[in-house]
Amino acid sequence: MSSPLRIGIAGLGTVGCGTLGIFRHQPELLASRCGRVIEIAGISAKNKNKKRDSDIKGLPWFDTPLAMIDKVDVIVELIGGDGGMARQLVETALRNGKSVVTANKALIAHHGIELARLAEKRNVVLAFEAAVAGGIPIIKALRDGLAANRFRRVIGILNGTCNYILTSMREYHTSFGEALKEAQKLGYAEAEPSFDVDGIDTAHKLAILAGLAYGTAPAIDKVYVEGIRRISLRDMEFAAELGYTIKLLGIAAETEQGILQRVHPCMVAANSPLGAVHGVYNGILAEGDSVGTVFFEGRGAGAGPTASSVVADIMDIARGVAYKPFTLPVENLASLSFSGMENLCCSYYLRLSVTDRPGVLAEVTGILKDEQISLRSFLQHSHQPGETVQIVLTTHETKESAMKKAMTAIGKLESVKEPPHMIRIENL
Amino acid sequence: MSSPLRIGIAGLGTVGCGTLGIFRHQPELLASRCGRVIEIAGISAKNKNKKRDSDIKGLPWFDTPLAMIDKVDVIVELIGGDGGMARQLVETALRNGKSVVTANKALIAHHGIELARLAEKRNVVLAFEAAVAGGIPIIKALRDGLAANRFRRVIGILNGTCNYILTSMREYHTSFGEALKEAQKLGYAEAEPSFDVDGIDTAHKLAILAGLAYGTAPAIDKVYVEGIRRISLRDMEFAAELGYTIKLLGIAAETEQGILQRVHPCMVAANSPLGAVHGVYNGILAEGDSVGTVFFEGRGAGAGPTASSVVADIMDIARGVAYKPFTLPVENLASLSFSGMENLCCSYYLRLSVTDRPGVLAEVTGILKDEQISLRSFLQHSHQPGETVQIVLTTHETKESAMKKAMTAIGKLESVKEPPHMIRIENL
Repeated sequence: MSSPLRIGIAGLGTVGCGTLGIFRHQPELLASRCGRVIEIAGISAKNKNKKRDSDIKGLPWFDTPLAMIDKVDVIVELIGGDGGMARQLVETALRNGKSVVTANKALIAHHGIELARLAEKRNVVLAFEAAVAGGIPIIKALRDGLAANRFRRVIGILNGTCNYILTSMREYHTSFGEALKEAQKLGYAEAEPSFDVDGIDTAHKLAILAGLAYGTAPAIDKVYVEGIRRISLRDMEFAAELGYTIKLLGIAAETEQGILQRVHPCMVAANSPLGAVHGVYNGILAEGDSVGTVFFEGRGAGAGPTASSVVADIMDIARGVAYKPFTLPVENLASLSFSGMENLCCSYYLRLSVTDRPGVLAEVTGILKDEQISLRSFLQHSHQPGETVQIVLTTHETKESAMKKAMTAIGKLESVKEPPHMIRIENL
Repeated sequence: MSSPLRIGIAGLGTVGCGTLGIFRHQPELLASRCGRVIEIAGISAKNKNKKRDSDIKGLPWFDTPLAMIDKVDVIVELIGGDGGMARQLVETALRNGKSVVTANKALIAHHGIELARLAEKRNVVLAFEAAVAGGIPIIKALRDGLAANRFRRVIGILNGTCNYILTSMREYHTSFGEALKEAQKLGYAEAEPSFDVDGIDTAHKLAILAGLAYGTAPAIDKVYVEGIRRISLRDMEFAAELGYTIKLLGIAAETEQGILQRVHPCMVAANSPLGAVHGVYNGILAEGDSVGTVFFEGRGAGAGPTASSVVADIMDIARGVAYKPFTLPVENLASLSFSGMENLCCSYYLRLSVTDRPGVLAEVTGILKDEQISLRSFLQHSHQPGETVQIVLTTHETKESAMKKAMTAIGKLESVKEPPHMIRIENL
């Protein structure tokens, strides 16, 4: 057996304690699979005396993680955040020729390329399987298992908080607000939930996946982002009636106008693999030109699943397996052009609150016709005369720019009582 | 860029032509992802002049694949079969210090360990991602992405032919025989289908997965195997009524009595991930102690998907990534004890054809009670008096040995007109 691999773990929150737990629980299994012992040569966190799930007695404590760098072969960064100590630690470790394993999506989405360049220079590893989709080994799959494919599309449910909220809304007919409160009570959502529910977290993860799939630097500023706050129970119920469910998707696709990256709520067939990803689970569907459609599902967060990916990266280093962080050397990454949402072509769901009077539908469909938008289905429930009526239209594939124009025109109609509510439909 | 990696492809059937196709279609993409060119330095097949999907003009032809060994860095064995030329070629290549990529599950299930030993001795790669589940990178996932986990259970729909037949039976209400004929017509089943429908192919793949999951040599002789010929349309319809669907599963699990490997038709919840794997698709569910449940789905056969995995393995070699074939060095593989079916504990579906007369059910339930088998549900449709009646029982978890005893006793009852028909239920 080779000499032990010494690791230093910085950050002892949920994932840090989960990681410690795996090493404590089955050191022999890991050692036999790696052909060498993995030794925890240092731990560090803000507060030594915080009550933790994991016992840290007997492990070498460092008041600052930077002081561990000299003592270890690998820094495991589980602090989080795209700047501050996390960034300083990772940079310093790489500059000093130490490999880094991190679960930090914000850091990789914003600074992954600079960091990859540092890792390359020193010929060390920078690995971040745990940054996307928790325990699902999707980064490794895009990088090696599916490496022979050109990807048409990569679609993911990448945020467990949002998926928990949307699943609750659908199953228990609760409003967004109620479902959010419940998620907060259960620890699935933060007190300040905007990072999750406004789609930012999904955007970080999507940018990383797209970078890997298309051999380009993560372009977080080229992701269209829309969260789930505007999804109403009414939309959820109409979706069910139409055979759909609503999911927050991150989608990266090759289009004629370049790579289009977008994060927004989507209607997907309820009986499709992505439509059946419930609760805090994550799911990713990749479409490759050779492999066809491949689908992955698993827990997207939590101590065990995320630690599973962190430890897998550490084990690769112990086994001497070294991929480039973004598969290709940084200098070989393509500078691709990115497309904007105006070029998106998809099907749409449109819900209108209208006064029930003759001619409303004629006006609406006239506007759609002017924009060459063709209808796929139409839904209106019976109601009392004079009431405000909800009408729901779905369209065939049409351009986002045309849809936007139509929505503006429809919103101006006197009989339309609220701004039209649109949700994109993703055909899987 | 490093010097080109020279490969020799032996066998130019579906997968061989698919593999050629990927190299012809996007050589630049592959070269950029590997940092070097992959050069087809030789091809060989039984018949040079056979009509093929792929154009082989301009590629160096060898009448025997053995003659390619000297000219290449990697032998790609796509001949098939657990002996004959396939085995001779792989052995000779490894002995001569050449890496091998193969899609040959029979060869790996039967002789994988000897071959791994040869590969280790010469420090070359033996890779077989394409041997299990076509385009799904499940071997890599068990080996690296999920390497931090101890696996409770690995369950797979691993044979596209069987899954196509079972899906047809369920969707189109056809008999096994009709569905098989249809599958043969479409090229999804062989003229001699027993390798697929009797579960042998699934057993090969399961033994490989279990070897990887449990760090042991594939033990193909320790797999209980039962195919799908006995599944009737009637069972399929009762399954649907009970919320189940019938799938041919390969299951490896850690039990108190050792590793239990089994291949047989199972009822699984129709709305579960495995229950929703339709047609020629494959699906694998792995349960790890840290990651929880992870699920993979994709095409399990065909030119593109299988070639996707073959080429991924070749790309790993081009990139200098080298895992041990079964993750651990051969000498470190555990010799585990295996359990037999008598120790299996699961739920059961039992269908009985009985004469409709008073007391039948009392007799049957009396026998179940004697074996301490507790009922979960009971189903009997209305019928004409005096007719033979189908009654269906499902049980709570019980021992296979008890179930077998009960079935023998039930089969002897005068009112029971056919041998009782049992299908195991897998709770997911």
